[in-house]
Amino acid sequence: MANSPRPAFRTLLELEAAAAAKVDPSVWAYVQTGAGDERTLRWNREAFERRALRPRVLVDVTPMDLRTTILGRQYEAPFFIAPMAYQAKLHPDGEVGLARAAGQAGVLANFSTLSSRSLEEIAGAGDAAGSWFQLYLQPTFDATERLVQRAERAGYAALVLTVDVPVFPIRDRQMLGGFAIDEPIPVGNGAEVRPPSRFLLGGDPDFPTREDTRATWEVVDRLRSITRLPLVLKGILDPQDAERAVAHGARGLVVSNHGGRQLDGAPAALDALPEIVRTVDGRAEVYVDSGFRRGADVLIALALGARAVGIGRPALWALAADGEPGVARWIGLLKEDVATVMALAGRRNLSEIGPDLVIER
Amino acid sequence: MANSPRPAFRTLLELEAAAAAKVDPSVWAYVQTGAGDERTLRWNREAFERRALRPRVLVDVTPMDLRTTILGRQYEAPFFIAPMAYQAKLHPDGEVGLARAAGQAGVLANFSTLSSRSLEEIAGAGDAAGSWFQLYLQPTFDATERLVQRAERAGYAALVLTVDVPVFPIRDRQMLGGFAIDEPIPVGNGAEVRPPSRFLLGGDPDFPTREDTRATWEVVDRLRSITRLPLVLKGILDPQDAERAVAHGARGLVVSNHGGRQLDGAPAALDALPEIVRTVDGRAEVYVDSGFRRGADVLIALALGARAVGIGRPALWALAADGEPGVARWIGLLKEDVATVMALAGRRNLSEIGPDLVIER
Amino acid sequence: MANSPRPAFRTLLELEAAAAAKVDPSVWAYVQTGAGDERTLRWNREAFERRALRPRVLVDVTPMDLRTTILGRQYEAPFFIAPMAYQAKLHPDGEVGLARAAGQAGVLANFSTLSSRSLEEIAGAGDAAGSWFQLYLQPTFDATERLVQRAERAGYAALVLTVDVPVFPIRDRQMLGGFAIDEPIPVGNGAEVRPPSRFLLGGDPDFPTREDTRATWEVVDRLRSITRLPLVLKGILDPQDAERAVAHGARGLVVSNHGGRQLDGAPAALDALPEIVRTVDGRAEVYVDSGFRRGADVLIALALGARAVGIGRPALWALAADGEPGVARWIGLLKEDVATVMALAGRRNLSEIGPDLVIER
Amino acid sequence: MANSPRPAFRTLLELEAAAAAKVDPSVWAYVQTGAGDERTLRWNREAFERRALRPRVLVDVTPMDLRTTILGRQYEAPFFIAPMAYQAKLHPDGEVGLARAAGQAGVLANFSTLSSRSLEEIAGAGDAAGSWFQLYLQPTFDATERLVQRAERAGYAALVLTVDVPVFPIRDRQMLGGFAIDEPIPVGNGAEVRPPSRFLLGGDPDFPTREDTRATWEVVDRLRSITRLPLVLKGILDPQDAERAVAHGARGLVVSNHGGRQLDGAPAALDALPEIVRTVDGRAEVYVDSGFRRGADVLIALALGARAVGIGRPALWALAADGEPGVARWIGLLKEDVATVMALAGRRNLSEIGPDLVIER
Repeated sequence: MANSPRPAFRTLLELEAAAAAKVDPSVWAYVQTGAGDERTLRWNREAFERRALRPRVLVDVTPMDLRTTILGRQYEAPFFIAPMAYQAKLHPDGEVGLARAAGQAGVLANFSTLSSRSLEEIAGAGDAAGSWFQLYLQPTFDATERLVQRAERAGYAALVLTVDVPVFPIRDRQMLGGFAIDEPIPVGNGAEVRPPSRFLLGGDPDFPTREDTRATWEVVDRLRSITRLPLVLKGILDPQDAERAVAHGARGLVVSNHGGRQLDGAPAALDALPEIVRTVDGRAEVYVDSGFRRGADVLIALALGARAVGIGRPALWALAADGEPGVARWIGLLKEDVATVMALAGRRNLSEIGPDLVIER
Repeated sequence: MANSPRPAFRTLLELEAAAAAKVDPSVWAYVQTGAGDERTLRWNREAFERRALRPRVLVDVTPMDLRTTILGRQYEAPFFIAPMAYQAKLHPDGEVGLARAAGQAGVLANFSTLSSRSLEEIAGAGDAAGSWFQLYLQPTFDATERLVQRAERAGYAALVLTVDVPVFPIRDRQMLGGFAIDEPIPVGNGAEVRPPSRFLLGGDPDFPTREDTRATWEVVDRLRSITRLPLVLKGILDPQDAERAVAHGARGLVVSNHGGRQLDGAPAALDALPEIVRTVDGRAEVYVDSGFRRGADVLIALALGARAVGIGRPALWALAADGEPGVARWIGLLKEDVATVMALAGRRNLSEIGPDLVIER
Repeated sequence: MANSPRPAFRTLLELEAAAAAKVDPSVWAYVQTGAGDERTLRWNREAFERRALRPRVLVDVTPMDLRTTILGRQYEAPFFIAPMAYQAKLHPDGEVGLARAAGQAGVLANFSTLSSRSLEEIAGAGDAAGSWFQLYLQPTFDATERLVQRAERAGYAALVLTVDVPVFPIRDRQMLGGFAIDEPIPVGNGAEVRPPSRFLLGGDPDFPTREDTRATWEVVDRLRSITRLPLVLKGILDPQDAERAVAHGARGLVVSNHGGRQLDGAPAALDALPEIVRTVDGRAEVYVDSGFRRGADVLIALALGARAVGIGRPALWALAADGEPGVARWIGLLKEDVATVMALAGRRNLSEIGPDLVIER
Repeated sequence: MANSPRPAFRTLLELEAAAAAKVDPSVWAYVQTGAGDERTLRWNREAFERRALRPRVLVDVTPMDLRTTILGRQYEAPFFIAPMAYQAKLHPDGEVGLARAAGQAGVLANFSTLSSRSLEEIAGAGDAAGSWFQLYLQPTFDATERLVQRAERAGYAALVLTVDVPVFPIRDRQMLGGFAIDEPIPVGNGAEVRPPSRFLLGGDPDFPTREDTRATWEVVDRLRSITRLPLVLKGILDPQDAERAVAHGARGLVVSNHGGRQLDGAPAALDALPEIVRTVDGRAEVYVDSGFRRGADVLIALALGARAVGIGRPALWALAADGEPGVARWIGLLKEDVATVMALAGRRNLSEIGPDLVIER
């Protein structure tokens, strides 16, 4: 690929198609689909149709500065890579490739409990101190605690507890696409690590006793008591939950509907963001993900008060299209896109971005 | 079918196509079409695009409990099967198969005056005490009374009087599809049982004297005087009619536009629901049907105050796709879907579902 | 055709396609297209998507009565046939066939200055006393007056002055469809009768002196002074113009954008109706046309205060599909459709139809 | 072409397709595409769907008069041709053909810094005193000043400073279409003239020192100090920027999002217009461009307070379709379209056009 005169994709526009051409259809179904009727999947994108950006002109936009600080650490861009499982299904480089590319670029990356590679291997390949470990509660708290300790030892900067998967959702399109019907998908963190359980009425003997479906705010307290890592809660859409998150010591929270993959009918993350920003009022950092693709999307969320924006599927597309170099190229294109729309909007750095930039249409 | 390694449908998503492949086109036209320009048919679905579900996280969702009480009897799910005619046109099992599957699952089913099998046979096959008999007024009150007495004797739990068919509507797509043009469709309750009359200006000698087109609130009183069964009125969209329904002793009412099959231009049932719930204010039970497909649809209606949600076409699709086992499978999938979205929304049982769950978009 | 076992169309739904199959493409372009970008053409239909009909149930709907009085004369239906030019282009029966069918059915029909047959022939074929003559101002008032006198002598019941064609609009699709490019279209009222002039900047020597482009409210007064026929103004969309119409003695006015064929960007006629009804406040009769197709459309306009609803293209479709019997059949189907939706809405006659029937969505 | 019995296009409707058939695909990609996801490109057109025109009838519309005065000079129409680069890519006549056609028609034309022909040649071919020179700031102010002096000497009537291109935007569709990837496009104003710079994070050694990305309101003052030409600022969308423009002596401003080619997500120009008209309140002339195609579009903007409306792509389409005669024909069709919709709206001249003509839908 190094000698190739033409990259797997030259623009952000080609990314999805470049990936689709390389990924097994059943895996593609896993990546692309949402839950239920995919209303929320659609709404995530439609939310951008209802907000315009009002540019200010004749502003000196030099020097442009995209840097931001997230949980006290400086990064080169106000977007980060959301946690996503099973990345080796998309490219042999898997999370190791993504970690290297993100680390090189100074961009925050999240890695999933269900990564294809082990969290230690990922940490060794990239910049552990600039990465976060995403946690799925395990069937027992002991198993959960072992994961937390491993993440801490490996040097991750924070724990991201996913709170919107009390049960595994119903994604008919994913199932019909043939993903993971017959056998479990291998994960890098050990055979004992378990994905969220499918809710089977009367059919899953584990169900009544699994910790994950009984997760409450007390679990948040218990997690905090066993780790020095800052805790981020991912999957908040209700301002009252945001208030509880602050009360229970969360240092950050991700306004997210899991890319439309959990509760179909949940609001677009962008729609839920402003009220949560107002509720939290600076007591924790507020991030957002679900449906973000380009620089203008990122800029809208920053203007509405997000400290940083998580991006999911596009990172997988880049990985699928060209492995580690693909992710590196995608990060570069997205940074350039963010910088360009900021300059066109007359904003030189993140401190100049505020709610006056956005017009509700 | 018992040995089949693959069911007729594995997910709710496949249901409609699985049925379409098996049903005669003229019958399919009967099942699928709506009245007029099919505005109301579309609006029933679009209404769900205007309501989001705000999930609450970190709630212990064990044990999940979908049970509800409808007119004093406990059922296993907050949805029921709406009354639909001529089910033998879809599968030889007809209403008998549907009654067995619903009875086994503990789900309320309604059976139509125009059932392909007799109401006695249906009652014998399923759980009569957990089923309701839907009543179309007959050309004379005597004929109506005979049906009521049979339903009572057969053990049905309630009478559902359909009030939105003073005349048979104009469904061009159904007629062009070739349904029931040349001959009447046989019904199980006897040759004397009549469907609602087509309104033929000057062309139907029966018209001026038929009871059904002259039905008024006095008919409701008269019906109540001849039966001990609780009376439910189906097809209410106007709060003033809801007030009258309560005043005339209805124990329940179904907010419904008959699946878009009667007055084209009638509002989406979901849109009409909240004001009727407020008007009735607990003096009767309020149900809703028309356009409901999945768990998230059901959850929205419950949050807006419906006690239970009627489902129509999907039950026919399941019957067409695989007879009684198809209906059983569909009920199972829908229960799982309802339970899953409830769990994802952080609600463990029906008492935890209220208007705060829904955001008007 | 009399022996045919199958009519050219059985339902309102088939009407447009039945006509399209028989009409010359260039004529079809004339019938179907609108002005400019066809925004108003679309808006006329979309306006019905924003109004729902709230049915009232358990109302005795016998006897149904569709009759109404328009300018003091009783008709069998609250809809009428709008004036349309060149009907022989669609079927040899032309306006004569339409006049016979409308007269037989007791439905008001309007006939255009630009009819293919003469106004006298049309009057002789149908029910002149139940018909209206539509007037386009001619290049001189003398020529206009001659037309008025002929209409009066022929027995027409009213004059409909079209006020929304000061110049002929730009209809690119009609022109590209090849209609009337090379030669004028023959009209039945004589070679001296002129269509509205195309506005040609600097290219039409007639333009500066033609009466039609200089028509003002004084012309209305002058017309009234030369005829005993009641005057109806067609093409009003502005409440202030409605006020002027009343002040200048109009007995009726048609809220209309000429089926989207004149000013592209004009509001949907249905949207303009309510404010004009309020302004006129009973001092004249208010009718509406533009975009009406079915019974539910008619019912919405009646509920919003229209005394009667004009229908245009569907009448041409019926004429094209099957000549006079086609128009008769269409009138029958539409009457049945209106009666059916009225019955389903719980309204027995026009006096029971009011604004409470409509919900703005 | 002069002998051809059939022009390259007969109506405005054919214009785009007529051009598409003749233009190299890579150039077509340049002409047609927008920035980012092309939201703003779409919004520019959708804005017309939200405004209706309320016609007034029975108004004498003779004589029609489209003339207007722009910066003190009279023109024959209230629309002008927006500045667009590289016109020789579309037709050998390039800007010279466009200048001749506009000059002949008495229509204001703007010519770009990046014109294919030199500004002097263009001025000589058309009506320089009725034309404006569009200015892109150059890497040094000296270079900018040289362009200003040339424009002044060549007799242009005004300078239009484009203020919405601090950096070159990201237009993936243009790049994928193959436009200008490998080599710079020749411009007529000399090899030293530079297009706006692409923003390359860390990749463009020129970036930190280029004047264009450091343009501020002081540059406006400096420009005014070196020329007697009136200054127009193009690309204002924010009322506060409009206020600043007035304060810094701009004589006119163009409410514009550059046809959706700069900041994707910027509001439709039509949506931004009214508030800016109110802010400026007559202290400068306010024009608008971006998305205008037909007479009705122009009329809406005039009613909302624009003094004149800029049209971009259609002029290029006309040039591509038939060179100078194509532009002349297009101007004629558009004038006729504007005059026709004005007449249909009951407005004889520009002074009769006001906000009462527009209804927000």
